[in-house]
Amino acid sequence: MLKRIDHIAVAVDDIDAALEMYERVFGLKAAGRESIEEYGVDVATIDVGGTSIELVAARSADSPIRRFVDKNGSALHHVAYEVDDIEDALKTLEAGGARLIDRKPRHGKDGSLVAFIHPQSTRNVLYELVQRASHE
Amino acid sequence: MLKRIDHIAVAVDDIDAALEMYERVFGLKAAGRESIEEYGVDVATIDVGGTSIELVAARSADSPIRRFVDKNGSALHHVAYEVDDIEDALKTLEAGGARLIDRKPRHGKDGSLVAFIHPQSTRNVLYELVQRASHE
Repeated sequence: MLKRIDHIAVAVDDIDAALEMYERVFGLKAAGRESIEEYGVDVATIDVGGTSIELVAARSADSPIRRFVDKNGSALHHVAYEVDDIEDALKTLEAGGARLIDRKPRHGKDGSLVAFIHPQSTRNVLYELVQRASHE
Repeated sequence: MLKRIDHIAVAVDDIDAALEMYERVFGLKAAGRESIEEYGVDVATIDVGGTSIELVAARSADSPIRRFVDKNGSALHHVAYEVDDIEDALKTLEAGGARLIDRKPRHGKDGSLVAFIHPQSTRNVLYELVQRASHE
């Protein structure tokens, strides 16, 4: 059901300062950067051999990312698994006891569909499913 | 310098309960499980399309993992990058301003060499480098 790890999201307080560090220390550059108004965040995507590090920074005071960073500082935030069929995967996860934050997939970046799983049902770790846009 | 993301480590309070959840909810099984006395931890490795989730549980009260879990509960703990030449990578990272926890690589699982980077220098995220054993 789970094909691979699509990305690891890191909540950051300052996306420019974070990007400067990733380039200076690790030699990593962002492949892209965008604002996602629906979530109130800026996201910079850094590819590392096929899996991404996504730096996520709050754009608004009521963003969940802002609350997370206020509590934890910059920190690892969630892990996303790629699946082929997200609706089917959500049904399978729910049957296995997962509590779904998104019962229906939402639109993510680049034509993807995404859904989050509540960490209460995954032992305190926030997981996301991602179905990438097909390129047929 | 960084080839790929080798693994994501999740600190857990109860490795058996965590493994039960990963199998029941995500359909994932551990490829292996071992005790690492040097670190005072049990580690279960779950492969997801070439990158691993490593569940790490404390075996002793003075393990850093125990202190982490006491403070945070089960949670994402660190991310490991695979490199070809860990000694060379450590020099490059230090030149870029990284503070090294391990100035010399230590022996990890399966003949690997590993070293941790202090989160003070990587914006509060703990990173590890892994040089896999060569299979020549």
